[in-house]
Amino acid sequence: MNLLVLTKSDLVEDKPNCAVIKDSTRLRHISSTLKAQTGTTLKAGMVDGKVGKAEIISFSTNHCLLELNFNSLPPPPLDCTLIMAMPRPKSLKKALEAAIVMGVKSIYIIQSWRVEKSYWSSPVLNAQSLLAISHKALEQSVDTVLPSIKIKRRFRPFVEDELLDIIGNRTAFVAHPYHSIKIPAKIEDSAVIVIGPEGGFIPFEVELLQSHGCQCVTMGKRILRVEHAVTAFLGKLL
Amino acid sequence: MNLLVLTKSDLVEDKPNCAVIKDSTRLRHISSTLKAQTGTTLKAGMVDGKVGKAEIISFSTNHCLLELNFNSLPPPPLDCTLIMAMPRPKSLKKALEAAIVMGVKSIYIIQSWRVEKSYWSSPVLNAQSLLAISHKALEQSVDTVLPSIKIKRRFRPFVEDELLDIIGNRTAFVAHPYHSIKIPAKIEDSAVIVIGPEGGFIPFEVELLQSHGCQCVTMGKRILRVEHAVTAFLGKLL
Repeated sequence: MNLLVLTKSDLVEDKPNCAVIKDSTRLRHISSTLKAQTGTTLKAGMVDGKVGKAEIISFSTNHCLLELNFNSLPPPPLDCTLIMAMPRPKSLKKALEAAIVMGVKSIYIIQSWRVEKSYWSSPVLNAQSLLAISHKALEQSVDTVLPSIKIKRRFRPFVEDELLDIIGNRTAFVAHPYHSIKIPAKIEDSAVIVIGPEGGFIPFEVELLQSHGCQCVTMGKRILRVEHAVTAFLGKLL
Repeated sequence: MNLLVLTKSDLVEDKPNCAVIKDSTRLRHISSTLKAQTGTTLKAGMVDGKVGKAEIISFSTNHCLLELNFNSLPPPPLDCTLIMAMPRPKSLKKALEAAIVMGVKSIYIIQSWRVEKSYWSSPVLNAQSLLAISHKALEQSVDTVLPSIKIKRRFRPFVEDELLDIIGNRTAFVAHPYHSIKIPAKIEDSAVIVIGPEGGFIPFEVELLQSHGCQCVTMGKRILRVEHAVTAFLGKLL
């Protein structure tokens, strides 16, 4: 944890510059990993708000009272919307973590022909689990701004009714393993990135994406795990 | 597993186009995950050799006899040498997997001031473990060529005596979080990439790397895990 990300529920009533940590996970992290004690100043921030310092005013086994001084903006977001076919849940967790750590603020998880039905019942997709993954990634990357994660379980209505509006005037790329045009060496503008399942989108899906504003590009002959494809593609935007 | 990577010990004596799988892990994978049986053709390759097809001639609970027909070259390597400070063992495993999946064939794991001493006694660094990680990544990325992974436990002699020769006439980048020059949007040539520990190299190390042919670049304000920094940086070379 490189940043303690606080939520409104951590704030002390009537004292907007004080927060109290009560949950054992964060208390343990503050004492054991950060080896902090009364008087220690931690790097902290308010979810969807500013970052700065939090000084430990008092610390016991069941609480940690902090005085907050938040006056810096979080780092700018990565100017990119990520759309990915639902990967196997383990990969989803890793891909989300990577995307959020790298600063993506708009993520769509979509249906595709090659997505196994059982994946959709994974607990990783619960709102609480997505929030926990997001928080962890923000704490890693010293950011406070939660991403929007939307789940679209019908491919065709998503592409036909929503995709053009999502793309707007940006460039949209579909990473498609069987395409011959190489991913551009340089992507400096805002972009939309569509990542298929490991086996790729089926031809019907590729054609529908192409007819709705997406360019097909290949990331090479190697079969990448979804989390690696996401991270490597986002690397192009750094 | 997208490619069954065979080794010489899998070959049947005096029959260079036949192999037999005897270990339970691969047998289980072939029967349960791939749902293969006698007559099924699998995508396979010989370690450090060609790729092609392997037809199952006979299959039982304790063996799988294959007839091999390997005539294609594996995908070209990613033209890059990766040098990374030893991260925490869990991260090392992930970073190695990502680098090998993406096609890196030359990897150095080096000492740095901020590397915790205990990391060096991790079993992940055993030759057998590194080989297993490499095999798994080759099986994922449909490649056969094992990477060279070298461990350098003394920073200064490595940089002073070996680095210039490793770099040769290539461009070498150090990803350093506190530097102001942005990572180039476009890296099309062969490159050497040096990734520090999560907290970055110390100033002495950065200066020594700079005086031995490395350019410092930043990947942004966010603190990336080593595996994400590696994958995102390698993405620049795709």
